Amino acid sequence: MFSDLEEKICTPDQLRPKPDNSALVFGKYFTDHMLEVSWDSKRGWAKPVISPMHNLQLHPGAKVLHYAIELFEGMKAYRGEDGCLRLFRPDKNMARMLSTAKRSSLPTFDAEEMIKCVKRLIQIDKEWVPYSTTSSLYIRPTFIATDPSLGVASPNEALLYVLLCPVGPYFTSGFKPISLMADPQYVRSWPGGCGAMKMGANYAPTIYIQKQSELLGHQQVLWLYGADHQLTEVGTMNIFLFMLNENGERELVTPPLDGLILPGVTRLSLLELAREWKEFRVVERTITMAEVIQAHEEKRLLEIFGAGTACVVCPVSSISYQGQEYNIPRSEPSLSQRFLKTMSDIHYGRVQHPWAVDI
Amino acid sequence: MFSDLEEKICTPDQLRPKPDNSALVFGKYFTDHMLEVSWDSKRGWAKPVISPMHNLQLHPGAKVLHYAIELFEGMKAYRGEDGCLRLFRPDKNMARMLSTAKRSSLPTFDAEEMIKCVKRLIQIDKEWVPYSTTSSLYIRPTFIATDPSLGVASPNEALLYVLLCPVGPYFTSGFKPISLMADPQYVRSWPGGCGAMKMGANYAPTIYIQKQSELLGHQQVLWLYGADHQLTEVGTMNIFLFMLNENGERELVTPPLDGLILPGVTRLSLLELAREWKEFRVVERTITMAEVIQAHEEKRLLEIFGAGTACVVCPVSSISYQGQEYNIPRSEPSLSQRFLKTMSDIHYGRVQHPWAVDI
Repeated sequence: MFSDLEEKICTPDQLRPKPDNSALVFGKYFTDHMLEVSWDSKRGWAKPVISPMHNLQLHPGAKVLHYAIELFEGMKAYRGEDGCLRLFRPDKNMARMLSTAKRSSLPTFDAEEMIKCVKRLIQIDKEWVPYSTTSSLYIRPTFIATDPSLGVASPNEALLYVLLCPVGPYFTSGFKPISLMADPQYVRSWPGGCGAMKMGANYAPTIYIQKQSELLGHQQVLWLYGADHQLTEVGTMNIFLFMLNENGERELVTPPLDGLILPGVTRLSLLELAREWKEFRVVERTITMAEVIQAHEEKRLLEIFGAGTACVVCPVSSISYQGQEYNIPRSEPSLSQRFLKTMSDIHYGRVQHPWAVDI
Repeated sequence: MFSDLEEKICTPDQLRPKPDNSALVFGKYFTDHMLEVSWDSKRGWAKPVISPMHNLQLHPGAKVLHYAIELFEGMKAYRGEDGCLRLFRPDKNMARMLSTAKRSSLPTFDAEEMIKCVKRLIQIDKEWVPYSTTSSLYIRPTFIATDPSLGVASPNEALLYVLLCPVGPYFTSGFKPISLMADPQYVRSWPGGCGAMKMGANYAPTIYIQKQSELLGHQQVLWLYGADHQLTEVGTMNIFLFMLNENGERELVTPPLDGLILPGVTRLSLLELAREWKEFRVVERTITMAEVIQAHEEKRLLEIFGAGTACVVCPVSSISYQGQEYNIPRSEPSLSQRFLKTMSDIHYGRVQHPWAVDI
């Protein structure tokens, strides 16, 4: 409970220097404090504690280190042009964290109380929120199973903690379009699995493949699924296609929440914005590589982009697939640019919007 | 390198009491010492160190805690009836550990040097190897990515460590047959994934399903794959079926190493033993639930059992599938009992065998 929150604040000599905004690399710098809440199956949740950033003491037999019983979330705090600090839809991240916890056999918690604790942590480290409208404070709630026992079983001890990182643009190339490798031999997620959950287990298997794509000169992996090579995700982002359909109508297409893809908060927000605009069709449906290639040949592809918390929107310049390189056009005016601007206006308080939550 | 091994041995007051053999629960008790070898991308492998069992100090941003970049192995040391300590085919476990490391973007190492270090660790803690021919010392090599950076990328820092646990029979029910839940809505692994690797990521998603099976009164999950409900693994074990084929010949069937299942060392050993015996057909092939049910109805099923390091062999008493409970017979003389006896004779030095390696 937030009312039980214990605060152990850094002494002035414990405070660390803040990096320049120009030096911000994703997830490399951490703020002065962290939030921890421990749980065990007998006593339930302990009091939340904010204390100086420190190493964790973990038993080497802790279940997180053997069976990957772990999950995380990613959200951001922004320093508005008006000086106010804001979160973006934290209730959505907490709802997803709870559903992942359930699937991970980790305990659930009160989402509203957790948001209050996170807000307090940000208030304490508020000088770490970059004074910049291209940077932000990345918030990483993490939840791990800590009991020191090698049985493959539900955990009896766990630790939920929250780290804060000042971050610049996710890709060092900035808003420059990225090239993708689409190779159907690698599959990120599958029906009956956990692809819709933000579990650590979904990430470890992707790193080797990401490296393969880099060796081939690409920046990210376009994850395909099934004999018909359905598009599912791009890197760690949801994917969007803006195209003319066979009737010549403009259409924004993204794969449906069928259990194979992560229900992104940015994905949801872009869909809601587009549906509000009512300027083009907005469709959640399965889309295959054959359709993409046909649309490419018929010059009906307007734009492809990824969407996620780390990057917000990230345009795609090309897809390498079955020995062919498909260059993806970029419509002018660009829809991804418009989404980025609209989202940034909300993030940085240039417009008032219910998605932006004061800290 | 083994020749660089540094040893920090417990003082007498640091030694912990050993549990009774009757109290041994899998993975609950750890010995007095552990082995650690750290790695970073600049300096490579550090010297291996054996030191008193202690908590790990991990940065809360360590990649293992977020993206499950982690793997493990499981093997055992046995105290023979002749008093000698033996390992069982450690080269096979180390070869699998290396292939998992590669797929996990973790560095590789010299398997023979690692086995020497593990042997030395066991020598130091040799009094922890149970004086019992139903118990053993479980060896848990673990390999985790430790660099404190939230980018989803290959690790630059890692820690390989080895824990030892005296263990009794894996299932508290001993050699009693177990009941299985087979529900095709849950899928452990899939083509294009990492199901053949001993990555932590393969285990986290199974725990919730295991709990579902327990709530329904079963002990383990029978993992199915595909529209035809192929049998893949049982719990954390490989699966074997002993049956009469349609020509009335006795046949030992186990699913093939097609990327969906773990290449178990016990699996390999049972296949090699059976092929040496030349008493019945030995077949690695896909087998579906429809075939199992047909064989059950035609009374051609002789026995089903799981095989793995923790349990060696574990007979199956029943399979619950699509609302039906199928009772599995147990042939007399029992093949699983014969396998267990043959393996135990090798483990405990009652026969000389090249698979048993002196420590």
